[in-house]
Amino acid sequence: MAERVAQASRRAGRYIGRPVTRLEDPPLVTGRARFVGDVNFPRQLHARIVRSSHAKGRIVSIDADEARAVPGVVAVWTAADMADVPNIPFRATAIKGLTPYTQPPLARDYVRFVGEPVAVVIADDAYVAEDAAELVFADIEELDPYLDATADPGEFAPGLGCEPVVIEKGYGDTDAAFDAAHAVVELELSTGRHSAVPMEPRGLLARFDESRGVLELYGAAKRPHWNRDQLAELFSMSPADIELFENSVGGGFGVRGELYPEDLILCHAALTLRRPVKWIEDRREHLLSANQSREQTHRIRAAVDAEGRILAIDECLFHDQGAYVRTHGARVADMTIGLLLGPYRVPAYRARAHYRLTNKTPAATYRAPGRFEGTFVRERLIEAIGRNLGIDALQVRRVNLLASSDMPYERGLSALETEVVLDSGDYEGLLDKALDFVGWNDLQDEAERRRAAGEAVGVGLGMFVEKSGLGPSEVVDVSVQTDGSVRVVTGAASVGQGMETVIAQICAETLGVDYRRIRVLHGDTNLIPFGFGAHASRVTVMTGEAARRACETVRDKALDLAAELLQMDRDKLSIEEGTVGASEGEGPSISLGELARNLTPASTVRGDREPGLSATGWFHNKHMNYPYGIHVAKVRVDRETGHVEVERYAVIYDIGRAVNPALVEGQIVGGLAQGLGGALYEEFVYDDTGQPLSVTLADYQMVTATEMPPVDVLILEDAPSPLNPLGIKGAGEAGVNAAGAAIASAVDDALQMPGLVRRLPITPQSLRKQLLTENAGE
Amino acid sequence: MAERVAQASRRAGRYIGRPVTRLEDPPLVTGRARFVGDVNFPRQLHARIVRSSHAKGRIVSIDADEARAVPGVVAVWTAADMADVPNIPFRATAIKGLTPYTQPPLARDYVRFVGEPVAVVIADDAYVAEDAAELVFADIEELDPYLDATADPGEFAPGLGCEPVVIEKGYGDTDAAFDAAHAVVELELSTGRHSAVPMEPRGLLARFDESRGVLELYGAAKRPHWNRDQLAELFSMSPADIELFENSVGGGFGVRGELYPEDLILCHAALTLRRPVKWIEDRREHLLSANQSREQTHRIRAAVDAEGRILAIDECLFHDQGAYVRTHGARVADMTIGLLLGPYRVPAYRARAHYRLTNKTPAATYRAPGRFEGTFVRERLIEAIGRNLGIDALQVRRVNLLASSDMPYERGLSALETEVVLDSGDYEGLLDKALDFVGWNDLQDEAERRRAAGEAVGVGLGMFVEKSGLGPSEVVDVSVQTDGSVRVVTGAASVGQGMETVIAQICAETLGVDYRRIRVLHGDTNLIPFGFGAHASRVTVMTGEAARRACETVRDKALDLAAELLQMDRDKLSIEEGTVGASEGEGPSISLGELARNLTPASTVRGDREPGLSATGWFHNKHMNYPYGIHVAKVRVDRETGHVEVERYAVIYDIGRAVNPALVEGQIVGGLAQGLGGALYEEFVYDDTGQPLSVTLADYQMVTATEMPPVDVLILEDAPSPLNPLGIKGAGEAGVNAAGAAIASAVDDALQMPGLVRRLPITPQSLRKQLLTENAGE
Repeated sequence: MAERVAQASRRAGRYIGRPVTRLEDPPLVTGRARFVGDVNFPRQLHARIVRSSHAKGRIVSIDADEARAVPGVVAVWTAADMADVPNIPFRATAIKGLTPYTQPPLARDYVRFVGEPVAVVIADDAYVAEDAAELVFADIEELDPYLDATADPGEFAPGLGCEPVVIEKGYGDTDAAFDAAHAVVELELSTGRHSAVPMEPRGLLARFDESRGVLELYGAAKRPHWNRDQLAELFSMSPADIELFENSVGGGFGVRGELYPEDLILCHAALTLRRPVKWIEDRREHLLSANQSREQTHRIRAAVDAEGRILAIDECLFHDQGAYVRTHGARVADMTIGLLLGPYRVPAYRARAHYRLTNKTPAATYRAPGRFEGTFVRERLIEAIGRNLGIDALQVRRVNLLASSDMPYERGLSALETEVVLDSGDYEGLLDKALDFVGWNDLQDEAERRRAAGEAVGVGLGMFVEKSGLGPSEVVDVSVQTDGSVRVVTGAASVGQGMETVIAQICAETLGVDYRRIRVLHGDTNLIPFGFGAHASRVTVMTGEAARRACETVRDKALDLAAELLQMDRDKLSIEEGTVGASEGEGPSISLGELARNLTPASTVRGDREPGLSATGWFHNKHMNYPYGIHVAKVRVDRETGHVEVERYAVIYDIGRAVNPALVEGQIVGGLAQGLGGALYEEFVYDDTGQPLSVTLADYQMVTATEMPPVDVLILEDAPSPLNPLGIKGAGEAGVNAAGAAIASAVDDALQMPGLVRRLPITPQSLRKQLLTENAGE
Repeated sequence: MAERVAQASRRAGRYIGRPVTRLEDPPLVTGRARFVGDVNFPRQLHARIVRSSHAKGRIVSIDADEARAVPGVVAVWTAADMADVPNIPFRATAIKGLTPYTQPPLARDYVRFVGEPVAVVIADDAYVAEDAAELVFADIEELDPYLDATADPGEFAPGLGCEPVVIEKGYGDTDAAFDAAHAVVELELSTGRHSAVPMEPRGLLARFDESRGVLELYGAAKRPHWNRDQLAELFSMSPADIELFENSVGGGFGVRGELYPEDLILCHAALTLRRPVKWIEDRREHLLSANQSREQTHRIRAAVDAEGRILAIDECLFHDQGAYVRTHGARVADMTIGLLLGPYRVPAYRARAHYRLTNKTPAATYRAPGRFEGTFVRERLIEAIGRNLGIDALQVRRVNLLASSDMPYERGLSALETEVVLDSGDYEGLLDKALDFVGWNDLQDEAERRRAAGEAVGVGLGMFVEKSGLGPSEVVDVSVQTDGSVRVVTGAASVGQGMETVIAQICAETLGVDYRRIRVLHGDTNLIPFGFGAHASRVTVMTGEAARRACETVRDKALDLAAELLQMDRDKLSIEEGTVGASEGEGPSISLGELARNLTPASTVRGDREPGLSATGWFHNKHMNYPYGIHVAKVRVDRETGHVEVERYAVIYDIGRAVNPALVEGQIVGGLAQGLGGALYEEFVYDDTGQPLSVTLADYQMVTATEMPPVDVLILEDAPSPLNPLGIKGAGEAGVNAAGAAIASAVDDALQMPGLVRRLPITPQSLRKQLLTENAGE
């Protein structure tokens, strides 16, 4: 995938650290995988959502009679029919005051964005449902929408917008620092609204199993247990009476697996109609109504001394949340200011995030939420400081980077309701290695040479700190089967990241079993009582460590029994390829399968041991860990068209320990495609009336193979996390994080117009317009 | 159900000991229950078995071309197509030498009974499959069948029958006892071939989930985990890759849930065709090919002293196993002689069971296997001793009954691979209570009076010892949900006996929760790693105690946390209706649901406690326990037709502790219907060529409401089992056990022809014929 991958796998084990092939792939590449669209039940119904075509308006009436009369239509519901179903709940319990702004499953009294569900048609055929949905007429009295989150908001409904909360964070005496500053550098920067567009759109199939009194929901992803518990609250059921099934998932990236109106509608329909009900999102619906993200405007100031040392940062952020608070609450805004400072020492900090509701599609997390935005802002600021003081931006970075001796470093801030304590890192060491890896000076020379020849070629760089391994807990059950294979059950989720493989590798290493004999089960809330899903780059860290602990216990149990059966000293035994035998030399041996057979309840040699060659492993973790990296971009700008071509790209990333370097590389390069999309192409654009203009893939321009540059990846393991014995940190968001920052820096450089880029994405239209304006202004 | 139920519920608790209504019933009585016939998957295929119409023959050829040509037919397979699938495995590991006599899924080379599967037709429609099956032509060279298990057997194939094993048991010097005897009493007795005919026939649906690589089998019953492990061996899969689902079950009684040829055929088909395959047995198939039972001939002798004291018993048994050793191996024959001695002291004992294969449907267990037969034989022997010595049979019983002071009493025999140790009992006390309960003397007087008036009315009695609570182990997971409801998971099975209710009652009592808030999950091998199913009257004893233990741990955890949160002394707290509070007086309280919320992983008050208000409970048990009872029958015989009318019936049963007296009563009365069937009506009759004559419900005559007498039930709790803290013994087989014995005794009495009945069932035809013969012989 990457052009060049380098990795210091100096601590590679038998399985950990090896780029083994993915266990997930055989069903996926042979078409055997079962996505929610593939799940069907007899007597199944199909739902089609009728969506608002107005950004804001009062619902005068909804006429569904014609739709109801269509043969095959079983039900047409509006808000009145679902009055008992509460609004979509949210997390972010630390931020108060958001409850009144949550979304009902079907619009009540007002519509607040184009695409908002106003009715649902349920029919015995998907096409009938779709046709009938066209016949539902919503009489809506249009109101002026509130679309600019930096403008003064009024009341939400029936007014023009609102600000449910301002989140404030900070420490130190910011005012004093600014008063004493050698210089103050100020910027207004913004990131455009974009989001994940996975290959497989969302989809759900809800079914009430009347024989068991159990509600089943297929198509769950990301956080099945959390969603189960929420649905239990919403529908006044016991969590034990709701089962969520994950199925194969064609891309998550934060957008999939949250509770949406459709989840509530489908569950309500299954419970009410007592027939399975299916809904598969089409592409337009996804671009219209799935969580969007990233739209923020930042007014940021830095107080600096003469050497470019940051004395304080003062940040004011306007977060465009769209029409409703959905499941993440205000987390993206909160995380943006909580993690804004990246790798730098900042003695005083004050941040306010204005969390504002507008008449657009509701927003939530998208891969590296708050960090893509924050890194862009911070790194722009660093470069502005250099520009202001006439110091090279790299030098500004160097004087401000935290040292490895500072670690662990308490920020005095919180994010995701945990204290930010940078666990380990050698940021300047990373910078040195990165510059060396990319051949920084040669790149500069080449760019200068080509610029001299008339080309607009530039090189840019962005440094970032990621966060990963969010707690609080994870639990894994490991059991060796009587045939020697291993069953691993977790409440984590698979959204394409390769978690089955990685968890199997960790188990394989710990247990001494071929990783291909390990089956990692997930995505079934019935199999394990707790689970925290796949988000916040947590699975390898949390599930990995819980799995390792379970395997350690299993290993102990195996060695203990083997020592007895083989009549050998336990300390002289080891497990290789699933067989316990003497670590050195010849001797008798016994397979793990045989040991499992000797641990069944009826076994005569089991003694007082609890039956089963199995164990449960828990890992509780109060703090996240913090991998970090650098993006380097070389771009060429076409001054006429405004088109930015990314000629080459490099990501240097210290992950603590790479369980599977090939998968880390895949995460980075895949993430980069999304990062470049946000930097250069992708944006949900709305017109003045709040009509979305990006509801097809022709308008919402995603990065394809054509746009992807050659990528070099350097995976480092210089700063293993002290928070888990394997030193693992997460990999999910490294490819996205600094893409906006690095591209902006490179575009500035290419055009030799420092500070030119103040907004992402840098689309050809916007850049061309800006060039015309700025050139005219010169 | 019963006319009169009496019970000494002197130890009834809040839930244990109460006749609460069944949790299982709402889905069953409202039609929401999901039997295997109700389970369907898209693209499902249907299998139809082509069965042998010859009792014995060599397969010359099978022509399936015409069937294969039928549109909709997907496959037609014979043995050659399933050559890789091994024969049906069996348990009874202690008895060697049976392996060569197991059954292949489709007949190989020879057919050995009418109804044996010789081919399978798989089509996309059940009716197409059935029609196409008619077109399969098996060219079979008929051979003379071996049909009388008391006749000398030869070689099995291609010969005339065989005796794979003779099982011997015994202790003491039998020969010496016979030499020294005051008298020797000898009988030849036999029980007819009959079996369970549940309302719902068998059925299976096998599906290979290609996305997970998992074989699913719906319609599992009785022993899902054991069957899973066996299927894993058969198909060389990991047990973790096979999932069995129980669904609702319309009657088990031993016959359902064993591995049959159809299980192997369906699994093979799903694995091969990669489409779901369903098979639902029709009634004829059930009567033709499901396990039959009970056909035994006993030659038994007793050596006695002048007072009727048994000095020794010498027993020789011929067990008609039918054509193959199926899943039970030789267990019925083994159990018959292992448990033959019932409640009596027998100083010396010698028994041989000739386990013989004939050309009939294979045999296995049916409710009270070996005990219905053995009790009939033993009680007939007791009465013969009385007759021989001129002593009243009740007196013979009294001089031979073991005393409660003998308990626990080691028999020196084994059954079901456990040593027979009678755990507790007061047999003579039971006899006294029974005679009092039924008004024995009044019954005798009435019978005598009516006989004097010309009617053939008699009263009979049979004493029995049951066995229950078979180990080795059971495990239960109990978890309190955040809404205060309780999820209980077990690997035991529900076959209609009410186990969900009974286990919920035990949990409710232990936890202090309304039993209706407890959901008992079973019948899903994926939910719990081990499970031993529902057989041998084990569930209430084994699962009940494992559940109680798990609940004790949960209760401890709840009280511990509640004491901390309420700041109260733990010893002063109790749990009532799901709320922990002061045992006496007013005070703060906290619900179990609230405690569960305080024990989630993220809880801030959980401390070092493992997350979850949950626990696993194991119960290991090396010995069975032994409930006991008496059947009393009053009958009236029609001398002309031979018809026996049962006028009144009583069952007196000491169960140790009745968790739910209403369910115990249901078990007893329901079992009695089957016992009376075996005593008077039901028989699988074969003609001289081995053709079965009882393949419709018109020919195989089951007891209906018309035949059922009024039943009085006395449930006693005089001898709680010392093997578990609640003192529970099992209830499943008490209603069947002594039915043959009591009816035989009553018929003898009615006709005043002691020892007349030597064979069951006492059908009108057989009794009339016997009366004609014996009267002619007089």
